[in-house]
Amino acid sequence: MRIDIITVVPDLLKSPFEASIMKRSIEKGLVEVHLHNLRDYTTDNYKQVDDYQFGGGAGMVMMIEPIDKCITQLKSERDYDEVIYMTPDGETLSQTVANQISLQENIIILCGHYKGVDQRVRDHFITREISIGDYVLSGGELGALILCDAVIRLIPGVLGNETSALTDSFQDNLLAPPIYTRPADYKGWKVPEVLTSGNFPKIEQWREEQAYLRTQERRPDLLEE
Amino acid sequence: MRIDIITVVPDLLKSPFEASIMKRSIEKGLVEVHLHNLRDYTTDNYKQVDDYQFGGGAGMVMMIEPIDKCITQLKSERDYDEVIYMTPDGETLSQTVANQISLQENIIILCGHYKGVDQRVRDHFITREISIGDYVLSGGELGALILCDAVIRLIPGVLGNETSALTDSFQDNLLAPPIYTRPADYKGWKVPEVLTSGNFPKIEQWREEQAYLRTQERRPDLLEE
Repeated sequence: MRIDIITVVPDLLKSPFEASIMKRSIEKGLVEVHLHNLRDYTTDNYKQVDDYQFGGGAGMVMMIEPIDKCITQLKSERDYDEVIYMTPDGETLSQTVANQISLQENIIILCGHYKGVDQRVRDHFITREISIGDYVLSGGELGALILCDAVIRLIPGVLGNETSALTDSFQDNLLAPPIYTRPADYKGWKVPEVLTSGNFPKIEQWREEQAYLRTQERRPDLLEE
Repeated sequence: MRIDIITVVPDLLKSPFEASIMKRSIEKGLVEVHLHNLRDYTTDNYKQVDDYQFGGGAGMVMMIEPIDKCITQLKSERDYDEVIYMTPDGETLSQTVANQISLQENIIILCGHYKGVDQRVRDHFITREISIGDYVLSGGELGALILCDAVIRLIPGVLGNETSALTDSFQDNLLAPPIYTRPADYKGWKVPEVLTSGNFPKIEQWREEQAYLRTQERRPDLLEE
C-alpha cells in the first residue's frame, strides 16, 4: 500500500512514522508513506498556501492552486483509489471504514489546516471525506496519523501475530474483555480465579460473558447494530 | 495546564509537540507537557513493562507495577484532577468532553500499548477512560495526541484569534459552512456570489443556512440533540 500525505506541516508527522508499528510496516516494505509539503507546490516567493476567507471572518483558508498542483502531479504518476480529505464534517471513521481502506492500493490524504480548504478543492478533487470524531483539532495531520495507524495495522503481515487484530474491540461489535498479567496478586488485588484455572473452555466462556457485559454496560449501541 | 503522559514509546510523541499549535502553546508557557517513559519505572534488568496474559491468548498486557510506581510518584509531587486512560472502550471524546478537560489544571494521560493494561490499573488508578472513536489503534499514544490537541487549542490565549475556535464545527451543534478564498474564479470554478457582495448581513444569513443544510445532510443526529 502506498499513502501520499499532503500537508503544510510535514515535520509534525515525522516521529509517529519513525516509531512502533508504522515504522516496522514501512521497514518491512508493506507500506510506503510519502509526505508532501504543500509549500513546494506554490508559485509565489512567499510560498503562500492560505489566504483570508471571502465574506470575512476569523481564520485562514487553504488555497486551491497549490493543492491542485500537488494532487495533479501525483495522479500523473499513478492511479489512486481515493483522495481523502480529513475534516470534522466528514464520514466518521469506524473499524468498517478502516477495514475498507486497508484493502486499497494507493491513497492520497489531504490534511486541512487553519480553517480548512477552499470548498472547490472538496467539490472537484476529493473522493472521500473522513472525520476521526466529533471534536475539532488544530489540523488534519493528527487525523491522518490516526487513519494511517488504524489502516496500516490491518494489512496482513504488519502485526506479528495476525490473530491479535481479530480479537480487538469492534471487530465483532463487542468491546474486549478485561485482561490481566502477572503478578496474580498485587498488593492484595487478585486476578479472577478462572483465568489461572487452566480450564480453557471455561476461560473462553468467561471472556465472552465479560465482553458482552462490558459492551452492554458501556456501549449498548454496539449491540443494536 | 500541566499534562503528564505515561508511555512505552515516548519517541512517537515527540514531533507533534514540536510543531504547530501545541509547540506554540508550550513556548508561550500556557501548557506544560511532560513525557514519562514507563521503562524508567521498572525494577528488573530487562526493563520489562509487559507480559503474557493470564488465561492465554494473543497480545501482551502492560504490567501494573511500573504504572503504579509512575503514577504514585507523580501524585506525590502535586494533585491531579484526572488520571485518564486512553482506550477504545472508554467514553467517546466529544467537543463537550474536550471543553471540560480544558478547564483542568493537572492531568495524567496513560497510553495503553500492545493489548492494553492490566485491568487492576483501570480499577484502582484511573479516574476517567476516554476513546477517540470506534476503531482500534496500535497504541494509546495517538489518542493522547488527539486529546491534547483538542484540549490545548481551547485554552485561552493559545489560538491567535480567540473567536476562531468558537466558529468551529460542533461548538453550536452545527457543522461549519463552506469556506472560500482567492481567486474568486479558478479554472471556471467560481465562489458563491454572495460572499463577494460585501453585504455582511446577507453573508451571515447565507452561512447560517449553509451550516444548517450541511448538518441536515451529513449529520442529522447533531440537530436532534
